[in-house]
Amino acid sequence: MNDDTTLSLVLFSGTDDRLAAAAVLATGAAAMGRPVNVFLQYWALDAFRKTKIADDHGSATEAGPSGTTLVRQSLTGQRHWSELLKQAKDIGEVKIHACALSMELFGITKDDLDPLVDDVEGVAAFMSDATTGPITFI
Amino acid sequence: MNDDTTLSLVLFSGTDDRLAAAAVLATGAAAMGRPVNVFLQYWALDAFRKTKIADDHGSATEAGPSGTTLVRQSLTGQRHWSELLKQAKDIGEVKIHACALSMELFGITKDDLDPLVDDVEGVAAFMSDATTGPITFI
Amino acid sequence: MNDDTTLSLVLFSGTDDRLAAAAVLATGAAAMGRPVNVFLQYWALDAFRKTKIADDHGSATEAGPSGTTLVRQSLTGQRHWSELLKQAKDIGEVKIHACALSMELFGITKDDLDPLVDDVEGVAAFMSDATTGPITFI
Repeated sequence: MNDDTTLSLVLFSGTDDRLAAAAVLATGAAAMGRPVNVFLQYWALDAFRKTKIADDHGSATEAGPSGTTLVRQSLTGQRHWSELLKQAKDIGEVKIHACALSMELFGITKDDLDPLVDDVEGVAAFMSDATTGPITFI
Repeated sequence: MNDDTTLSLVLFSGTDDRLAAAAVLATGAAAMGRPVNVFLQYWALDAFRKTKIADDHGSATEAGPSGTTLVRQSLTGQRHWSELLKQAKDIGEVKIHACALSMELFGITKDDLDPLVDDVEGVAAFMSDATTGPITFI
Repeated sequence: MNDDTTLSLVLFSGTDDRLAAAAVLATGAAAMGRPVNVFLQYWALDAFRKTKIADDHGSATEAGPSGTTLVRQSLTGQRHWSELLKQAKDIGEVKIHACALSMELFGITKDDLDPLVDDVEGVAAFMSDATTGPITFI
């Protein structure tokens, strides 16, 4: 039953709660030896800017003030989603791609992005790595 | 073309509109004889507390007041998403797991959760049941 | 590795940023010759009304005023998500279905919907086309 197909994650949202959930899924898949292919769009891409990645990115509106505080407190040190993604890259085959269209939208270049991001690619390149396996939009 | 692979649903959001959409997808898959594997994280987990499951959980911000009222009115009796999930469990192979990390985040135990939830598991266990088939994040 | 399974997209959100992201993914998949099966629920269905499709649908709350303006400006002419979906239908096998339950919720009929929408179907019909391949919820 185990076909170890690539897990394709489209990260769209740039709030800390969704990014943390995404990092947990990526780490779980990488720990099982499964390739993980991440595509950063819109607000998630914006959150991966060098100058913003460590910032407080808030949580979904539904979290409310207490939920937002809870999530923020959980992201200290080794447990920040960017640290989890770093660990996932250390243990497995995890690639993080920035969506070319979203780069254009924000007017940013590869140099503006955190080194966690491997490269910039178009949706066709992303899709050609996602012909088998789930495509999970977060 | 029908390989009946497990449908893995990661429920992240705890608003009534998204939980209702998730319950409809789970019921549709179960009715076709497809195994459904639900993983409750963050605000969705919070919504499955015994003391909260029947509450008004609101809708996405974009719903606005009239959309939120519409959704709320549609959830009466047999049509509440928790009832739909109960029916899905009656007709098919539907398991609902609470994410161990999210349990820790909220400081809750299995006893705090509605009986709809089968058990608490880590992301690795969830991922090992999701090696084939879609992983849908809601 | 290329099995060209159907990409099933459940469009739930009706904001311009998520609809644009969905249209980009649908176009990318269609350009690769992959069948795309779209299911419109809730706020996404509402956005496909004839009288609303060209409207400003806003962006996610996290976009803030400047992000919302940026997205809105990017949707001019050929780049509007409805135009992208039209192009995807021209180049590939892309079907757009309205969820019967959501139609009932909003009290609308097929005539109220933009001609981009092919038909109205239940979740069982949608699921029977999604037995292989990803189910991506946006």
